[in-house]
Amino acid sequence: MLAVPHSPESPLPLKPSLQLCREFLAGGLLYLEAGEAPRRNGSDVFHRHRSDSYFVYVTGVELPGYGALVDTETAHLTLVAPRLPEEMSYWVGRVPTLDELAEQYGADRVVYDDELAGLLAARPSADLHTLPGSADKVKKLAPAGWRVTSDVLSVCMDRCRATKTDGEVACLLAASVASGGAHMDMWRACRPGLREYQLEAVFSMSSRCRGAPCPGYPPIVGSGPNAAIMHYEALEGTVEAGHLVLVDAGAEWRCYTADISRTFPASGRFEGAARDLYGTVLAAQEAALDLMAAPAVGGPAATLADADRAARRVLLTGLRDMGLLRREATGGSDWLDAALDAKLDRVFMPHGIGHHLGLDVHDVSDAGPVPKGPLAPGHVLTVEPGAYLIAPLLARARTDPRVAPFVDFGAAEALMRGGLGGVRIEDNVLVLDAGASGEQGVAAAPGLRGRLYNLTEAAGVPKAMAEVEEVMRQEWRPADALAAWC
Amino acid sequence: MLAVPHSPESPLPLKPSLQLCREFLAGGLLYLEAGEAPRRNGSDVFHRHRSDSYFVYVTGVELPGYGALVDTETAHLTLVAPRLPEEMSYWVGRVPTLDELAEQYGADRVVYDDELAGLLAARPSADLHTLPGSADKVKKLAPAGWRVTSDVLSVCMDRCRATKTDGEVACLLAASVASGGAHMDMWRACRPGLREYQLEAVFSMSSRCRGAPCPGYPPIVGSGPNAAIMHYEALEGTVEAGHLVLVDAGAEWRCYTADISRTFPASGRFEGAARDLYGTVLAAQEAALDLMAAPAVGGPAATLADADRAARRVLLTGLRDMGLLRREATGGSDWLDAALDAKLDRVFMPHGIGHHLGLDVHDVSDAGPVPKGPLAPGHVLTVEPGAYLIAPLLARARTDPRVAPFVDFGAAEALMRGGLGGVRIEDNVLVLDAGASGEQGVAAAPGLRGRLYNLTEAAGVPKAMAEVEEVMRQEWRPADALAAWC
Repeated sequence: MLAVPHSPESPLPLKPSLQLCREFLAGGLLYLEAGEAPRRNGSDVFHRHRSDSYFVYVTGVELPGYGALVDTETAHLTLVAPRLPEEMSYWVGRVPTLDELAEQYGADRVVYDDELAGLLAARPSADLHTLPGSADKVKKLAPAGWRVTSDVLSVCMDRCRATKTDGEVACLLAASVASGGAHMDMWRACRPGLREYQLEAVFSMSSRCRGAPCPGYPPIVGSGPNAAIMHYEALEGTVEAGHLVLVDAGAEWRCYTADISRTFPASGRFEGAARDLYGTVLAAQEAALDLMAAPAVGGPAATLADADRAARRVLLTGLRDMGLLRREATGGSDWLDAALDAKLDRVFMPHGIGHHLGLDVHDVSDAGPVPKGPLAPGHVLTVEPGAYLIAPLLARARTDPRVAPFVDFGAAEALMRGGLGGVRIEDNVLVLDAGASGEQGVAAAPGLRGRLYNLTEAAGVPKAMAEVEEVMRQEWRPADALAAWC
Repeated sequence: MLAVPHSPESPLPLKPSLQLCREFLAGGLLYLEAGEAPRRNGSDVFHRHRSDSYFVYVTGVELPGYGALVDTETAHLTLVAPRLPEEMSYWVGRVPTLDELAEQYGADRVVYDDELAGLLAARPSADLHTLPGSADKVKKLAPAGWRVTSDVLSVCMDRCRATKTDGEVACLLAASVASGGAHMDMWRACRPGLREYQLEAVFSMSSRCRGAPCPGYPPIVGSGPNAAIMHYEALEGTVEAGHLVLVDAGAEWRCYTADISRTFPASGRFEGAARDLYGTVLAAQEAALDLMAAPAVGGPAATLADADRAARRVLLTGLRDMGLLRREATGGSDWLDAALDAKLDRVFMPHGIGHHLGLDVHDVSDAGPVPKGPLAPGHVLTVEPGAYLIAPLLARARTDPRVAPFVDFGAAEALMRGGLGGVRIEDNVLVLDAGASGEQGVAAAPGLRGRLYNLTEAAGVPKAMAEVEEVMRQEWRPADALAAWC
């Protein structure tokens, strides 16, 4: 049974299971690289280094220039360290010894990069699997008789990475705790007149101070109409008193990222149409979560596509109830099916309900970022319904004879004139074993619902309107909190 | 005479003089590119985009995927915009029209990138100058008979970029105001027990909230012994009560970066050896600034190397006075020259005193980042003496028979045991016309000293010990300040 750690101080090394890789690769070796930070403006300044996710998955090493050689038969890990010149010690700090590196990262052996070719030459020839970006370099390193391939490894590792280990879940939970706290600091700091980028700055500072050094993706902070821009990153807008502010932001803990969306009222109170729209999206999320949480008894488990459909039904019903759909078109018993057939839901929610989450925000699996089959234990997924008033999609809907009859364009335009852009509510959930919900001790854990463990709820990030309003009434006191976060 | 703007709301477009380019390139065309943000971890997440500095210099455009074609005869600027698919509008926000782009950036014409080849084909053949990174692409675009070269342009532009226009100085001053305010917020927020990365987070939030969205280089925050690591970026250390905290950080305003170093006592009071070392470095900086500020009358103007030497003399004298050098070796009248000949100063200050500053933190000139000849009007330079106790350099000095006799290694080790790492004080200065200091109206401006205009002093960033202590006694109130910064 999954041990759910509640402290962000999870143990190193993470050492994921290499079982699947072994099955696939039948005795070969893997070679992976951390990569180097890219240059920033053609000058001697670099972006912040983030190791390649496949490399982090196997080593936990967040430093540039490192490599890893893995024997898939024995899971023996050789860490390959760059040999740094002596003067690096006073330019960038003390360079750890090979023994220290082995100890810190749980490597079986650590060698310098200039020793790697000799190390391979001393072994019997074998298949050497790597990723396309490293193939040219590895081909030069490999002795004669070795076969270097880069067409299998990512497939195998994508399959491994989709199923999270306990250590990975601990990192994702820690990322949720830091990111969730930073979301709430934004709510506390928010007041009409602020610029969106100022709220983003509060998020980045707060999550960094809480130990999650870097956002896992560019934070989206859209106030009012800007909430209707899906990947809005400009953040130049001004928060106005009547706005809902949509924030989609998560920070990384040991390279594992949270991906949390919350929407809150700039005034501190959900009112009017904003309240209705928020309630609709929240109900849609509850429907999706309930469906995903139900134990799979005597049949296949639910898929994310099932949850997506359930959410869209609730969404359209809510939009009808708040007057955005026309009574004439939604009176019959089968209007919902007809509306979904016509893709009416895509006008208001043009994105899918979720995706894998892990070392990448759109994490990998053998089916890609969006899982295709039944939900499987160890999957960590986002569940993120939204509803938006998107001018270009509404304009297109007007000219679509299957969709247009459903929409009360006048009502939609009135809400847009009032500054309403949209709502998204996004949690991150871990799929547990089918029988998990009945086990003792776990049932009482916050965030547990059937076979789902909701990391965002476990991290204490509220989404009920009254609870969001309650946090917004609190004073933002970063000076006091800095000391508490050490 | 140079107009020194004091408001960060400097006008767009920046349109630098292309005169030098015209002289060099004799009628050719330039083609420059903004570049694209690099991928972050082999996934669909990208680093924050920063346009190539040469491109920003000519266009002011901070967006990815743009290009610029410049006729060096007429300075006619054609901005080349990526043609974005329609659905981008609700994924990333409204796409500006070509007319809006022309208006915003002062371009003479704006075309889509798929129109560029046709536009070139309609012109008589000419030389087409570009940078090495764009050469392959440009060769494919250029019609038959055109000559594409990438070996001259950067040389010409480096020479242009070394001499700042009024608009560029305005941006650098605005960057100094935002960055200096963020430095002072760190002083206010600092207390023993904080982690270095928390102070960095305060800097980044504060400078972003003040309108400078991104550090121009990775901030260095080294507390106690970590202050002795020149490019320290780990920021994992803990601030202790007896530490001096060295911060070297600057944020960008319209891509022009400040580069400010300050060192402050975690306790809020400069005391003991920390006070002596700070005083020594401050005196060294004053010596360098005085030398650079003196009007060039009847002879060549001072060079940065002259200022560097002046600072090192004051530095060594101060180190002797505080007991780090041995009395026996520093008694004679010529000890200072002998010590400099032996490179004793390099043990305590292994870096140079400064460099060009502009769109890049180590900005370009035809001599590279460090100016070689006499200081020239329009140069913006850093002036950043430092003194450090660097264990590996002291160990090497012990075995150097020319240097070892000067150093009181016991005294140095005692200070290191007490946690003293080092001090750096860094200002950014603009070199004015030789006769500038006498002109009316300018002489009274804060930051003006002879033929130097000190942007860091003009931005109100104190460095006198009593003034730093005064700011540290102030409460850090970001919640109140957020609104003021809008």
